[in-house]
Amino acid sequence: MSSTARVSAAYRKMVDDDHPAIWITLRPEAEALAEAREIDRRVADGEHLPLAGLVAAVKDNIDVAGLPTTAGARSYEYHPAADATAVARLRAAGAVVIGKTNLDQFATGLVGTRSPFGAVPNAWDRSRISGGSSSGSAVAVALGQVDLALGTDTAGSGRVPAALNGIVGVKPTRGLVPTTGVVPACRSLDCVTVFARRLDLARLAAEIMAEPDGPGPPANPGTPVPVAGVPRIAVPTREHLDGLAPGWAERFGEVVQGLRRCGVRIVEVDIAPLLEAASLLYQGAFVAERTAAVGDHLAGHAGLIGTDLDPTVAAIINAGHQIGAVQVFRDQEKLERLGQAGRELLAGTDALLTPTTTWHPTLAEVAADPVGANSRMGRYTNFANLLDLAALAVPAGAVNGLPFGVMLTGPAHSDQALAALAGRIGFDDVDLLVVGAHLSGQPLNGDLVRAGGSLVGAVRTTDAYRLYALDTTPPKPGLVRALPGEPDSTGTAGIAGEVWRLPAAGFGAFVAALPRPMAIGRVDLDDGRQVSGFLCEPSALAGATEITRHGGWLAHLDAVRSRPSSS
Amino acid sequence: MSSTARVSAAYRKMVDDDHPAIWITLRPEAEALAEAREIDRRVADGEHLPLAGLVAAVKDNIDVAGLPTTAGARSYEYHPAADATAVARLRAAGAVVIGKTNLDQFATGLVGTRSPFGAVPNAWDRSRISGGSSSGSAVAVALGQVDLALGTDTAGSGRVPAALNGIVGVKPTRGLVPTTGVVPACRSLDCVTVFARRLDLARLAAEIMAEPDGPGPPANPGTPVPVAGVPRIAVPTREHLDGLAPGWAERFGEVVQGLRRCGVRIVEVDIAPLLEAASLLYQGAFVAERTAAVGDHLAGHAGLIGTDLDPTVAAIINAGHQIGAVQVFRDQEKLERLGQAGRELLAGTDALLTPTTTWHPTLAEVAADPVGANSRMGRYTNFANLLDLAALAVPAGAVNGLPFGVMLTGPAHSDQALAALAGRIGFDDVDLLVVGAHLSGQPLNGDLVRAGGSLVGAVRTTDAYRLYALDTTPPKPGLVRALPGEPDSTGTAGIAGEVWRLPAAGFGAFVAALPRPMAIGRVDLDDGRQVSGFLCEPSALAGATEITRHGGWLAHLDAVRSRPSSS
Repeated sequence: MSSTARVSAAYRKMVDDDHPAIWITLRPEAEALAEAREIDRRVADGEHLPLAGLVAAVKDNIDVAGLPTTAGARSYEYHPAADATAVARLRAAGAVVIGKTNLDQFATGLVGTRSPFGAVPNAWDRSRISGGSSSGSAVAVALGQVDLALGTDTAGSGRVPAALNGIVGVKPTRGLVPTTGVVPACRSLDCVTVFARRLDLARLAAEIMAEPDGPGPPANPGTPVPVAGVPRIAVPTREHLDGLAPGWAERFGEVVQGLRRCGVRIVEVDIAPLLEAASLLYQGAFVAERTAAVGDHLAGHAGLIGTDLDPTVAAIINAGHQIGAVQVFRDQEKLERLGQAGRELLAGTDALLTPTTTWHPTLAEVAADPVGANSRMGRYTNFANLLDLAALAVPAGAVNGLPFGVMLTGPAHSDQALAALAGRIGFDDVDLLVVGAHLSGQPLNGDLVRAGGSLVGAVRTTDAYRLYALDTTPPKPGLVRALPGEPDSTGTAGIAGEVWRLPAAGFGAFVAALPRPMAIGRVDLDDGRQVSGFLCEPSALAGATEITRHGGWLAHLDAVRSRPSSS
Repeated sequence: MSSTARVSAAYRKMVDDDHPAIWITLRPEAEALAEAREIDRRVADGEHLPLAGLVAAVKDNIDVAGLPTTAGARSYEYHPAADATAVARLRAAGAVVIGKTNLDQFATGLVGTRSPFGAVPNAWDRSRISGGSSSGSAVAVALGQVDLALGTDTAGSGRVPAALNGIVGVKPTRGLVPTTGVVPACRSLDCVTVFARRLDLARLAAEIMAEPDGPGPPANPGTPVPVAGVPRIAVPTREHLDGLAPGWAERFGEVVQGLRRCGVRIVEVDIAPLLEAASLLYQGAFVAERTAAVGDHLAGHAGLIGTDLDPTVAAIINAGHQIGAVQVFRDQEKLERLGQAGRELLAGTDALLTPTTTWHPTLAEVAADPVGANSRMGRYTNFANLLDLAALAVPAGAVNGLPFGVMLTGPAHSDQALAALAGRIGFDDVDLLVVGAHLSGQPLNGDLVRAGGSLVGAVRTTDAYRLYALDTTPPKPGLVRALPGEPDSTGTAGIAGEVWRLPAAGFGAFVAALPRPMAIGRVDLDDGRQVSGFLCEPSALAGATEITRHGGWLAHLDAVRSRPSSS
């Protein structure tokens, strides 16, 4: 797709999605289109721009020249003259930035509700949180409004919302992507992160951004990628998988079991030192680093607490004034000791695999207990930056119709190795819409399960689709998109189906084995997402019966069964 | 020399030197000798022990199994079960550790006077300070009691005393030599350092100790050694060479001029960012890291302040309780900014050359102004560990009869490159005793000056030497050591001479050009030091007149001149 077409589609999608809390500032469409035309021209001139044709969103604590930076507070707003280094590099590679996204104020939170610009609802269920602090960026990617988004991650802000919205979140090694032009949260720990729906794109963007932007040693090329040999993956012992949301421990167990079946060596480790390190982020002296960053702003605008300044965020940051310098150095020493213990426990393994977060609260649950609900969520993410680890959050199926995500965490500069591992063990998942014989309980559903798939949930297409009963064995429906201008003669509101999530490898095998006339293409859902889904070749429709009026294959089967003539 | 002979000599030398403040704890000689015998046996068995035959001292804030660690305070004393990693590696390489040396308490000071075990006087002038905090280690090496000594360096403690005692001090990149088993001063900045009289030995010891002692990445192999090409060395602009001791700026200028003559490219840089960073060590929040280390000990022993606990050290460390955590993070941010500025100003140069310290106060001057006198001394050393730089302090001649030292400071992991540079530009100086025609004002003195030498001061040999007037042109004396048992028939107390300090390269050329019957060997001075010095071949003594009774060549010349028969 051309950059201009992609930009136009992004702006249309934003209108269709009606998810206003995602964005704090949008670029004027005409301006973004002008930039896109220039990209298209350069590509037409033969220039290689690796991100040409893609649109990107930027979390509003990262500078984009020409747009205000608020860090989630109007009172903090400033107008940067230059792009942050990370942004400049994305743009130089051809991505068009279309706006700045909402966040937990001053990037302090994992919930996505701590913002005077509004809580960002989840892409899959508007009663639930998006996760944060990079809330808007994650949801914009999950809904397909943008292809890429930048976030930041200190305590998990680039991984938790990836997990809760079913997308990939790459948290590079600290310092690999420069933080020049980023409003600090906890300056020494902050990382710029990337969200994308696919791992390969997220990694490409991360690599494009990874290079120091001042004099100093070049970027560490990283540890060798373990492409050969049996991967050894550490997982937490049972006691550190307690208190997960219903079904999450079981789903994590399935993921681990799946890895075992693929020949991955699983090693249970006691991650107590990592969890103890994690506690230092908010219960120790590091809170004062947030105070050093924006404490003066809070002190100068105390009257805005409760309106422009989030009270929970303000309380956390102001608490840093009470901490003594001695405590910082004691915590840093403790951290080194725990880091050493962590390295020892992970020695000999390629990465640690954990759930990315522990539960997926509703907006109401977070509102009822803003600090408690939040702090449960960072169990597996809080320690990574404190201990200078790289991490990768990837979708791993769904539980109760909501995305479930797992995370690979490895030593500093293991970024490439983690990605190779994630690719190798098939975490680069694909969502697939099924509307017929692959639905839960239907004859071919076992094919999806065997391919490693899990049910994400029930969905419905937009009303642009028609369904036909095909003449196949077993009986299958054929989904086709109505021609432009074709009258909607059916009165239905889309076709019912299910989204299943499959590891890329399993998906590939599944598609390769597909019999005629079935096909896989992109299908628009009525919640605004676009997923891969079953379609069928037009040739198969000759003589087939249109069953669109039933609104789905199961309803059609019910209707057929209840019809006296077919009994 | 065998390890046993060397150990015996070390203990004899300690008695002869009568410098009791150097040592806090000595190993029983018999125990050290037993260890030395084992070394000798292993060497005889063909084992390669790179430090066999050498004796070492260890600063008393570094653990040696079997000896107490005091960090300069009896109240702090503990009995470590194991050697510090650095010590274990020296011993494994064959060095015999003979004891623990005095220091500025808790390694807090650059003077060597802040110890209940006594101020350590300078090796060259007992009215002056040794420098600190690694006072005993530096003086033990300078006097030749030991070949090697370990120190620590946070603010300059491994470099300032090297400069003031005319020896080499190697301060490796932070973290290169593990600090396991070292009492922390400012834990995140502390380095284990090496003192030796020669650079090659100091470097060998540093390399033997440089390897992580836990899981983690291997030691950085370092930046390539700039063995080819024109070295580019940065020096401070004039305004940052103000306030030096009388003659020091001039001597530094001579060193720089000497480098220019050798083809080194000199680049003047404004080191203001480095000096601003330096101020953070004691005027910023980092003091609280000292409080984190030993503040609890001071609080629990407040009644000992003024007796076992040094009042100046206690006041510095207790001040850390008043500092807030926010300040730590502000200082760390400032430090990063200044570090960046520092890297920019040094970019394109191989190292920064500075005087090592700024003056050499007397013990009385430090007693009169303990904090002020001390803080002047760290101007060029305080910033290195804060900014994660490697440094090397080397002797560079003498001013007013006392050693003068310069320092090469370079980026982290430039350790090898700095040593190569120091070797290449001839900083590995040699002290040479002259007793005749090379004395100041004598006909051959210009040879020393041309070789890059400078006068260290007037000295006297022990009474074991005899002086003869040789039949040479120009007239020269011949110095020979009396045979064992040869009666002292002269009644004099040694032969007068001068010690000159020459760059190794110049010294080499000088020795290579020496005419018969002159020779260079090791000569004992009456102050306990042993230096290279002029001797002569026994064959030249046939027919020569013994002039020992005059006590020196100049006195002999005077006597000859005043004798009527020679007028």
